[in-house]
Parts: sequence; C-alpha cells; structure tokens
Amino acid sequence: MKKGLLMVYTGDGKGKTTSALGMALRSAGHGLKVCVVQFIKGSWKYGELEAMKRFDAEIDFHVMGRGFTFKSDDLEKDRALALEAWECVQLAMFSGEYHLVILDEFTYLLNYGMVDLAPVLDVLAQKPDGLHVAITGRGAPAPLIAAADLVTEMREIKHPFKDAGIMAQKGIEF
Amino acid sequence: MKKGLLMVYTGDGKGKTTSALGMALRSAGHGLKVCVVQFIKGSWKYGELEAMKRFDAEIDFHVMGRGFTFKSDDLEKDRALALEAWECVQLAMFSGEYHLVILDEFTYLLNYGMVDLAPVLDVLAQKPDGLHVAITGRGAPAPLIAAADLVTEMREIKHPFKDAGIMAQKGIEF
Repeated sequence: MKKGLLMVYTGDGKGKTTSALGMALRSAGHGLKVCVVQFIKGSWKYGELEAMKRFDAEIDFHVMGRGFTFKSDDLEKDRALALEAWECVQLAMFSGEYHLVILDEFTYLLNYGMVDLAPVLDVLAQKPDGLHVAITGRGAPAPLIAAADLVTEMREIKHPFKDAGIMAQKGIEF
Repeated sequence: MKKGLLMVYTGDGKGKTTSALGMALRSAGHGLKVCVVQFIKGSWKYGELEAMKRFDAEIDFHVMGRGFTFKSDDLEKDRALALEAWECVQLAMFSGEYHLVILDEFTYLLNYGMVDLAPVLDVLAQKPDGLHVAITGRGAPAPLIAAADLVTEMREIKHPFKDAGIMAQKGIEF
C-alpha cells in the first residue's frame, strides 16, 4: 500500500524546519515538485533561502500572511490574512502540481486561533491520494496528531543559548 | 560569545538525517563549506544525493567504511575500517577547510563497539574553536550528550510503516 502521507514535525527542539527543508530537497532530487509555505516571518532564513534558489524548477516557495509574528496587534486582520493564506494552500494542494506541500510553522496559526482546526482537518482528509503534506511547528493539536500518518516530536534535551549563553551562529541557526 | 557547536540529533523518530541535510544546505547557502561523512550504507538516499550534486562547490560528501551495516560478519575487519574512517574525519575536522562537519549515523559505530568513545570525546574536545560538528544516530551515549552543546531527541510518536502498513515512499523516505 502506497499513499500520500500527512506528516507532523512538532516539539520544542531544533530540527523541525531543517527536516522540512531536507525533505523538500529529497523530493527535488527525484525531480518531484514541492510547494513550501512559510507561515511565520523569518522561520526560513538566509542560508536556506539562498540554497533553495538552486531548485527554482522543483521548489516553489511562498511567504504567507505578509509575515505573521507571535504577537498580534490586530487579531481580526491577522485572521483574515491567515484565511487568505489557507485558501492559497488549498489551491496548491488540489492543483495536482505537487508531490509534497510543506506548511512550515502552521501549528502557530491553529494555536493562536487564526485558523480553525475543524475545517483544516476536513480539507486534509480530502487531500489528493498521492499528495504528501508536512506540517511543522510547536504544540501540534491532538486531533491533528490523531489525523497524521507520521508524527515526530523534536524534543529539546540541550539548547546552547539557554544552557551556555552562546549566540546564534551563521550557517547553523540562520 | 560565539563558538563552534557540537550538535547531537538522536532518538528513534524520523528527521535526524533530513535535519543534517537541511543544516548542510543552510551552510552551503551562506557559501560556507561542509563535509558530510556517511557511516552507514544507505542512510543518504537517491533523492538527497541527487540534490547534493548542485552543491559540489560547498559540500564534500564521503561514504566511509565501504558501507557498514547493522550486522557484522567480521567485527575485527569492521573495527579496522571504522578506525580508518574516524582518522579521515579527524583530517577533515582539523583541515581548517570546513565550517561544519556532519557525522551521519556515527552513534552506531560507538554503540556497536567499532570505535571507542573515550578517544572520540578527546578529539571532539580539541576541535578547532570555530568548527561546528553534528552527529546523528539513535541511542547517543550519555557522555556524548554531556559533551554536546545542542541535543535534540527525535521522538517517534507515530510511524506509518508500523502503524498502518504503508510502504516507503519515493521523495519522502528515500
């Protein structure tokens, strides 16, 4: 049995976005098309954005919602933008163009009440059979985990900034 | 304070090698050189190997030990090859050429007694200041975790092969 997977990468540890990046590259290496949607401003940084430029033919990259941040000044406006972004994701999912659609940091939109979970789960349940969807972000809601085929929790055991006062490093953190 | 980090990605879940791949790409995007050493045959698969070809100038990729596997027919021979591989890694680490050296699936060599932990920790403690080293693999030994600056455990919450009898998928698993 083969089918498109719903994958969730959650938890507080490092490696959620880099895993998604690695998966995008793995698909691109096969010549399969990938759509990456970045929901939180700055989650994909200079290093990976530059690297992605070498995969112009295989990877489409979108920054949604004109850069959501963790603190909202105007929740109603953010909700409207989030819904607009979610509409675009659905277009990508049902376009038949992609092997893999990555929703990077999408859990934040769910957890901050910008997008409702129930209609998202409905859409994910109806996604095309062969399409893989990967969702990253902290605190994936339990019903999303229940709906997923593959779930990994990146668990933080040690973090250099908190534990030893080390700054973010070029080529590692960004 | 800035320093080269010793990073460990361990645990049973998905995302250890894809995270390492993502990190290699992040560095390459900055034009920084990366050395990837694959210790277990087949841990880097067709998709990512094809993708890496677009980073010939930035990423050097080595398969060590002529393909260790999990079961050894001749432990003495495997130990000799593992030591040879570890010598090569040290050359890479102290060459001054790299921003990041990735030891993919290196924990297996430690856990299967092919390389001794104590001399490895000595060498890691003496690595050049600015060099980042990332080690991936299940079951990272506690002294390695203690020595590391950043540790993430990829915890398997749900796995499609075990839980639903779904086969490995092109562009996702390989």
